[in-house]
Amino acid sequence: MDTSYMNSRITDKKKVHIFIVGTGAIGSYYGGRLAQAGCEVATLCRSDYEEVKQRGITIQSVKGDFHFYPAEVVQRVEDYTQKPDYIIIATKALPEITLASLIQKIVYRHTSIVFLQNGINIEEEIATHYPKNEIISGLAYICVTKIKHGVIEHQAKDRLVLGKYPEGCSSKAEQLKQFFIAAGIECKNDTTILAARWHKLVWNVPFNALSVAAGQLTTAEIMQNNEIKNLAIKIMQEIVLLAARAGYPMAENIISDYIDFTKDMPPYKTSMLVDYEHHKQMEVEAILGNALHIARQKKLDIPYTETLYILLSSLNQKLVS
Amino acid sequence: MDTSYMNSRITDKKKVHIFIVGTGAIGSYYGGRLAQAGCEVATLCRSDYEEVKQRGITIQSVKGDFHFYPAEVVQRVEDYTQKPDYIIIATKALPEITLASLIQKIVYRHTSIVFLQNGINIEEEIATHYPKNEIISGLAYICVTKIKHGVIEHQAKDRLVLGKYPEGCSSKAEQLKQFFIAAGIECKNDTTILAARWHKLVWNVPFNALSVAAGQLTTAEIMQNNEIKNLAIKIMQEIVLLAARAGYPMAENIISDYIDFTKDMPPYKTSMLVDYEHHKQMEVEAILGNALHIARQKKLDIPYTETLYILLSSLNQKLVS
Repeated sequence: MDTSYMNSRITDKKKVHIFIVGTGAIGSYYGGRLAQAGCEVATLCRSDYEEVKQRGITIQSVKGDFHFYPAEVVQRVEDYTQKPDYIIIATKALPEITLASLIQKIVYRHTSIVFLQNGINIEEEIATHYPKNEIISGLAYICVTKIKHGVIEHQAKDRLVLGKYPEGCSSKAEQLKQFFIAAGIECKNDTTILAARWHKLVWNVPFNALSVAAGQLTTAEIMQNNEIKNLAIKIMQEIVLLAARAGYPMAENIISDYIDFTKDMPPYKTSMLVDYEHHKQMEVEAILGNALHIARQKKLDIPYTETLYILLSSLNQKLVS
Repeated sequence: MDTSYMNSRITDKKKVHIFIVGTGAIGSYYGGRLAQAGCEVATLCRSDYEEVKQRGITIQSVKGDFHFYPAEVVQRVEDYTQKPDYIIIATKALPEITLASLIQKIVYRHTSIVFLQNGINIEEEIATHYPKNEIISGLAYICVTKIKHGVIEHQAKDRLVLGKYPEGCSSKAEQLKQFFIAAGIECKNDTTILAARWHKLVWNVPFNALSVAAGQLTTAEIMQNNEIKNLAIKIMQEIVLLAARAGYPMAENIISDYIDFTKDMPPYKTSMLVDYEHHKQMEVEAILGNALHIARQKKLDIPYTETLYILLSSLNQKLVS
């Protein structure tokens, strides 16, 4: 890929306006990369508005540190001055966040709404609310953490998979991919992005859930304990079975591949564990709850996943109370 | 029951020597009651030896406070000067405690070994090691907590069920029952004590396990959350099924009875939760592990129980490390 060509092509064109909802680790990192690629990137900030407005966002990256000063930093969506080509949803996927009404004032006919979130069935609310807008669903394979307001640490990887929701090709998804590639990110388009979401879920359910419920374990600690590792495998089997019932059959070796992949990882704290340790709400509904609801609809028993869902929901409630 | 008659009858007889292993809440409470009934009760103490040796044990009981000064307080079994009629095992049922060798020097032909512990299959090691000695298995239905060295708080109930292990009648079990009754305790003999153990296990597995794994909940909090309550019911169904396979079929209404019983309880912290909050080893093997091992032998899937067993084992390991 000749990225210099890409860069020149992009800067020749009319500025592309991107609005990022959520300046956590994911939103800040990929927003910063899109700014590097020449896009005009604005951010919606809540708790860290003052810091980001004054000093922007510092990204301490394994690929080299960089600074991201957003084109606009707003505390309320209605203060944004542009008509965005893309709105990128990079908040945590929590049920209490009602995205559709949040972004209402800046969704135009040409606006594509992009998800960079974990879980399954996270797009439905927006897709139902904005049936004429293109939805792009994205998965980030990255180790990145917000250290404090305005400071992000990027530890490893940053691969992205994007795709038109619910499936198919789109020139806007293709354009967005090219921006990411221009910024040095390995990004590909997937015409069956929901299958990719289920694929990622097979890893996310067991490792996120067990990392918290088994007593705050890293992925390496999960792999070192045979009983817990075998429980992770049983949970993966349940999700693979459920995915097949939901229309997303997986290759036979997905589970052994994920086991090998996890063995090769450095000791890693899952996003759910990081949230739990910081007394923040975990993405229990997006990652486990939506899967369990589908299983219940289809009358498929997934008792290992179900148990962990109930325990983690209770832990989430305890975090609130 | 004319207890004054009992008291006079007992004091007329030759002193009965009882040696209590473990001066936690259970051992201290029932040891104190046996002393009240006129038995000569000695105790094996570890961490609280100095306090108990000097001042005995204070029992703050809902039935009236009382003081228990053991006939002998020893730090090592071999320092005990009598040949006990009963050795009462009242330690927590933890796999790392090897009881058979611990009591070796004081087990005589006439000595009955009594268990006042939770769980199932806790008697096997002793029964195998001392095949000629009578084993009495006991279940305590009591809310009692050790507050600090030498001080026990008895909050509610103190009912006991005793029975010859593995089944049948025994004059020694009958005699022991009479001592407890003389001390005002509701005590009965059960000729099928292992069935009673399985019966109690149906409650102990879900409520102990969930009280810890769902985020340190009282029984009342478990009952208030429908998802968790339903999970408790599913776990009870697994244990009832397993018990039937193991030869201990239960009455059909056991689960609804336990639900009603738990609804009527004041908010209660299970023993596992109390241990967990004090960073002490929980009785995971005795209460869940032994059941799971039987299920695996019988190739019966009990996934809800299995998941909780694995999580709690991991939490136990974390407590040690």
